[in-house]
Amino acid sequence: MKINSSRLKDRLDAINSVAVTDQGGMMRLALSDADRAARDLLSKWMAEAGMEVRVDDMGTMYGWLAGSDPDALPICSGSHMDTQPNGGRYDGLYGVMAALEAICSIRDQGISTKSPLVAINWTNEEGARFVPPMLASGVVAGIFEKDWVYDIRDKDGMRFYDELTRIGYLGERGNRLENAKAYLEAHIEQGPVLDAEGFSFGIVRAALGITGLDVTIKGEANHAGSTPMGMRKDAMMAAAEAMLKIRDFVNEYSDPAVATMGTVSILPSSKNIIPGEARFSIDMRYDDPEGLTEIEMRSRSIIEEICQSMDVAFSIERYWRAEPVHFDKKIVEAIAASARKLGLAQRYLTSGAGHDAVFISSIIPTGMLFVPSIGGKSHCPQEDTRFEDLVLGTEVLAETMLEIDR
Amino acid sequence: MKINSSRLKDRLDAINSVAVTDQGGMMRLALSDADRAARDLLSKWMAEAGMEVRVDDMGTMYGWLAGSDPDALPICSGSHMDTQPNGGRYDGLYGVMAALEAICSIRDQGISTKSPLVAINWTNEEGARFVPPMLASGVVAGIFEKDWVYDIRDKDGMRFYDELTRIGYLGERGNRLENAKAYLEAHIEQGPVLDAEGFSFGIVRAALGITGLDVTIKGEANHAGSTPMGMRKDAMMAAAEAMLKIRDFVNEYSDPAVATMGTVSILPSSKNIIPGEARFSIDMRYDDPEGLTEIEMRSRSIIEEICQSMDVAFSIERYWRAEPVHFDKKIVEAIAASARKLGLAQRYLTSGAGHDAVFISSIIPTGMLFVPSIGGKSHCPQEDTRFEDLVLGTEVLAETMLEIDR
Repeated sequence: MKINSSRLKDRLDAINSVAVTDQGGMMRLALSDADRAARDLLSKWMAEAGMEVRVDDMGTMYGWLAGSDPDALPICSGSHMDTQPNGGRYDGLYGVMAALEAICSIRDQGISTKSPLVAINWTNEEGARFVPPMLASGVVAGIFEKDWVYDIRDKDGMRFYDELTRIGYLGERGNRLENAKAYLEAHIEQGPVLDAEGFSFGIVRAALGITGLDVTIKGEANHAGSTPMGMRKDAMMAAAEAMLKIRDFVNEYSDPAVATMGTVSILPSSKNIIPGEARFSIDMRYDDPEGLTEIEMRSRSIIEEICQSMDVAFSIERYWRAEPVHFDKKIVEAIAASARKLGLAQRYLTSGAGHDAVFISSIIPTGMLFVPSIGGKSHCPQEDTRFEDLVLGTEVLAETMLEIDR
Repeated sequence: MKINSSRLKDRLDAINSVAVTDQGGMMRLALSDADRAARDLLSKWMAEAGMEVRVDDMGTMYGWLAGSDPDALPICSGSHMDTQPNGGRYDGLYGVMAALEAICSIRDQGISTKSPLVAINWTNEEGARFVPPMLASGVVAGIFEKDWVYDIRDKDGMRFYDELTRIGYLGERGNRLENAKAYLEAHIEQGPVLDAEGFSFGIVRAALGITGLDVTIKGEANHAGSTPMGMRKDAMMAAAEAMLKIRDFVNEYSDPAVATMGTVSILPSSKNIIPGEARFSIDMRYDDPEGLTEIEMRSRSIIEEICQSMDVAFSIERYWRAEPVHFDKKIVEAIAASARKLGLAQRYLTSGAGHDAVFISSIIPTGMLFVPSIGGKSHCPQEDTRFEDLVLGTEVLAETMLEIDR
């Protein structure tokens, strides 16, 4: 199944020319004017392709291409068009454009599917403007309450509902995705594995679960010059020992366990005062719930042992827990069969990042495919994917839609 | 030599009642209204004691009690009355009040000295409002330029000179301390040693030299979920390893070596992004210049080795170097002789903190004595010293003035 690669390129470039930072990054925050401009283009292209454009009450856009069987459930695919501030060119946008291009190519080639084919653009996946991420897919999946989401404000105090109305994309609740034969999402990997191993494409079998801890260690702030080394209770030294030991433990744990201490801060934060308090976060991910719990428990006991041995106090709060998700076996197999048909080597992956597909998998049979991120870069202007890989991924996506339709 | 302990207590309490935070800390920032109120009280007490009050062009106050020999150089003692924000009750203030009380007691007891006796209040020792610390003693010692100090602004943009003029304490350059038989400074230890070992008083033989480094480590910021542990360049992990190894090295180095990593910050500081950059400071102190250099060099090589092994980049900048100071042997011996006369056990100490005495020692024979800080606490409302120790220290100071006068 070939696709129209120059149309794919033109559309990606058109949307990526809307709001570019001086570092060459994308600045298409959810429900901003730049998001509206991208939505207007998408809406136009959907209409030109003979799709019926529907918008739901979260602003999520659906382009419906009718199928031949009036009773068949739709086959859906999409992602998001919002970006991080100064974000990358293909994060999210690729999945929306790949879905649109796959459906347009199927139509152009006169192939008639039983199921309607639907291209989707989810609102506010990044969580960069309105926190938390994946707000619209979360509402559709029953994870978030609509009214709670409507009241979320960005850092300037702007309300989600008001901004959704302002850009003209408040639609009907009846347009929400509620049932479908399949939901497929193509996405950049946002990690280095496919690129490092030389694959053009990967099949995502599962998404890692996440458990997140906020750790606070309290020692004693004292004078850097007049407190002998042996009389110190340096909170940062305890934090450093705990961070390294947790890293070492997770390094030894079985794949794909990861742990990240992404925030660290100390008080009073003065060059000549011993840190009296240190805080850090631990983001731990794994593909099995028991293993994830074990990693969390071991991290907690590492902190406890170190703090006790250094005679400092500590507290730990869990700020997040999301269970691992295993995508639908039949959908994963359909993606693999399509890849085989196209003669592509198959590399199975686990997604370490959150995606709309992770939430949607709780209500609809779901699968994901990844294209490589060069050097694993993501959420920055340097994020990139070879164009031939973007084309291949779109071809696999189109082929998978037809495979599922059969 | 007995002193008037109730007068000492009343005066300490009077000044400490001027500007108290809701946590019970002192808020007497240099050249603030609270500083002016304290200065006005000091000025009144000096005049009541028959002293001539002189103010120099840095706002430093001198209370001169005439001696019997018109040719004798003065014997001086003092410290500072400015505080950290939410600082302690005796840091600095004790040294000014002890000097005033020692001189008043000598006069009350009808003892006539050959040398004039001078009590001093140095401007802006803390460096909490106007950075760096010890501005006035630094100018007198020729370390800072007067006009440079005049132009320093606080964080609200207020200029040192304007604030000095506003509170009415801009005096004459001719009043500066330029020559003296001795400068003595009594101060709280700001460390735990005297309290932990049960001494009421300590003789300061030297002040540690300081070398300060700012370290920046650059790794790669990447997604916390999709970057396998083995493919990370986590700048914070390199920083944590370096900090612990430097601590371990200094722990093994000979006394009184200390090293403090008092500031730590990372970028981008997001819970789900691997730290791409980590910065920290290292404040290293030692009582011998070669040893201090050796500690700095070893710290630099530890950072280099770790960064090379973890394949991350680094840069190191030295932000401070101050050589160790050894106080005048005769003055140190005069303090020890006075302590013996009062039947006090002698504990020699090295000061880890900076003091006006450290700068003044470059132009005048100088010595310091410490009283204990309970639990070593300093720069916080919990800073405290037993009153009997404050009295003993003042008696040693008075005795030392007489000893030097002989």
